[in-house]
Amino acid sequence: MVKFANRIQPCDNGLNDIFSYANDPALISFAAGYPNNQLFPQTELQGAFNSSLTDNINLQYSGAAGLLSLRTKIAQHISSQQRTFTAAEILLTQGAQQGLDLTAKLLLNPGDGVVVEAPTYLGALSAFDAYEPTYYEVPLHDDGLDLNALQKILLTHSVKFIYTIPDFQNPTGSTLSLAKRQALLRLAARYDVIILEDSPYRDLRFSGQSLPSLASLDTQNLVISLGSFSKILAPGLRLGWLVATPQLLAPLTELKLGNDVQSSTLIMNAVDQYLDHHDLSAHITKMNHAYAAKMTTMCAALKHYLPTAVTFTQPSGGFFIYLTLPASVDTGQLLKRVVLPQAKVAYVPSASLFPVSHQANGIRLNFTNLDNSTIELGVKRLGEILTRALTQPHYAKL
Amino acid sequence: MVKFANRIQPCDNGLNDIFSYANDPALISFAAGYPNNQLFPQTELQGAFNSSLTDNINLQYSGAAGLLSLRTKIAQHISSQQRTFTAAEILLTQGAQQGLDLTAKLLLNPGDGVVVEAPTYLGALSAFDAYEPTYYEVPLHDDGLDLNALQKILLTHSVKFIYTIPDFQNPTGSTLSLAKRQALLRLAARYDVIILEDSPYRDLRFSGQSLPSLASLDTQNLVISLGSFSKILAPGLRLGWLVATPQLLAPLTELKLGNDVQSSTLIMNAVDQYLDHHDLSAHITKMNHAYAAKMTTMCAALKHYLPTAVTFTQPSGGFFIYLTLPASVDTGQLLKRVVLPQAKVAYVPSASLFPVSHQANGIRLNFTNLDNSTIELGVKRLGEILTRALTQPHYAKL
Repeated sequence: MVKFANRIQPCDNGLNDIFSYANDPALISFAAGYPNNQLFPQTELQGAFNSSLTDNINLQYSGAAGLLSLRTKIAQHISSQQRTFTAAEILLTQGAQQGLDLTAKLLLNPGDGVVVEAPTYLGALSAFDAYEPTYYEVPLHDDGLDLNALQKILLTHSVKFIYTIPDFQNPTGSTLSLAKRQALLRLAARYDVIILEDSPYRDLRFSGQSLPSLASLDTQNLVISLGSFSKILAPGLRLGWLVATPQLLAPLTELKLGNDVQSSTLIMNAVDQYLDHHDLSAHITKMNHAYAAKMTTMCAALKHYLPTAVTFTQPSGGFFIYLTLPASVDTGQLLKRVVLPQAKVAYVPSASLFPVSHQANGIRLNFTNLDNSTIELGVKRLGEILTRALTQPHYAKL
Repeated sequence: MVKFANRIQPCDNGLNDIFSYANDPALISFAAGYPNNQLFPQTELQGAFNSSLTDNINLQYSGAAGLLSLRTKIAQHISSQQRTFTAAEILLTQGAQQGLDLTAKLLLNPGDGVVVEAPTYLGALSAFDAYEPTYYEVPLHDDGLDLNALQKILLTHSVKFIYTIPDFQNPTGSTLSLAKRQALLRLAARYDVIILEDSPYRDLRFSGQSLPSLASLDTQNLVISLGSFSKILAPGLRLGWLVATPQLLAPLTELKLGNDVQSSTLIMNAVDQYLDHHDLSAHITKMNHAYAAKMTTMCAALKHYLPTAVTFTQPSGGFFIYLTLPASVDTGQLLKRVVLPQAKVAYVPSASLFPVSHQANGIRLNFTNLDNSTIELGVKRLGEILTRALTQPHYAKL
């Protein structure tokens, strides 16, 4: 019998229940976090790949850090009045996800402390889990993580890094306020803790002013910041970036070499060509109009159909809305026993998004890859079944 | 000060010396393991990407295991009279390199035993190092690893897996004989040890009969086998595969999810399209003709120019020829102090290819990405400088 490493643990994140309904044409899934197929700049990317493939060098190896001209363009894209970034601070990755793995690999011995927002992104936990951390949860408010709770943890525990999604958080949609960004950086400096800033939704703002990234406010070289083309171009490219001071980037690049040598030369070159010939900001603006309309549709439907015992977030951007049900409800059980079979609606139940407390009364809804009428119909079905569930006593045990 | 994980160690593999000469137009580098740019099926891949990009679904997420139709084609490609493989046994990876990382991640706790061929592939050590193994070296002969030495290790130490490159080994070019393949599998079964078979050069045979893969001979589900499109199509695609029994593939796929979610939908679909419309075997045959000529050129030049105290391997395929110098010579020091500055030739010195013994008297030469006259000129320069080095007493200390 093969004995696996300690890091390999049986996992049930409640998503397997959804797969058995995946082929049901009646299913309306708010579970996945997919961008909208229709909004990919397909023709433009076709031109970019065509052009890349006129030179055979774009099919060759090209180095672990990633294509210099693309890193330069990303540095420009993330530069702001607070800070100018350079290519020397950027490593290209397989989506932001690989940045999560590389950062954990750089910093964590088994048992080391990691602070996460509660709830947080499931994929981050799946990346970190491989390095067997000790998790500490910090509650989330509308303006981001609870800094008093964070300080208590930092005072009493040894923590290697604080993982935060400051812009349109996954799964809650909350955005860390500017004051809290500055306070978070002061805390990190005081306790000498790295901040891992994961911000794939940063450019997807539907209203209000963009806030400076943690990386751009950082004066102590304590922020590792992740971005991605997955949500602003297309996830099928698997291309993201990691921003860090060169002292951290050098060992991270060595780890990238060991992980997969480098990202695809062809993909990097084609995205570079796309950025040479097309206006990414204009493309993002177009996407944001479409996504904003979908979110408005979902919020209006939630307001109309949800029972009053259920609250929901109203983000200014991103991909997700988060529902909070009465504390006694287990949304995983509810999904499996009632919502999937009776309402044919899927969502992400919250228990697995809290690595310590496993709070089960939350629901993550995505709105980006459905049309408005499907969003409305799905929310209607969900609202009606939740209304029944919360008023009938035998559902309360679920 | 940020404290890194224990796995992060300062590394000097002797390759940095080469980088300072990288822009010298006089440099002839036998160091890299690059396939030949000129042999990429560039036009055919251009057509495949063009066709993939007519459907926006190929820019979307598509699942961690990888595209089913491509996995089916790979299963056919690796099936033989010994064994038929199915898509359910295949996970698509970022080159074979990611398979090294995933396997180590699946199996290794810090200190666990890993057997490697001595010398072995540097990139494998860089993948395994992150999981802090205890290495055991097994000497290599012309017909592959020394099974008596292996058995002694398995008798006296706890080993999680045996890492082998059975076909045209990197760096020696040696191929494991059929009898030894069968004996290796018996040993693995007796001591309940996984075999990690890494075979990116398998299809690049210039003469003789192909031998069955370890995976195809395995009746105990103890082999994890890695393949790649890097050497038979193009490395810039970053696409490889891992073959294992579904009981191992399930946790490996979970690890892949945490590493980078999935491989690029677009790349997978384009390679699938390429295989639909083109004859990969014919392409490989064409490549093998070109590579065989380059190897013949290099061997003839080595025979002509090398001093008699230096021996070299004459493989039946693959990318590399391995030179053995007298035991007192340190080829890393020789490279840095004499060969690079005086002969303007680069190679991979052997010390870092032996994780325990650091034997320093070997040289790895690659012949695939140079034209015949450059190969000849480079070997002439190398042979002349080695002849001088080995006859002049003050060089002997190098």
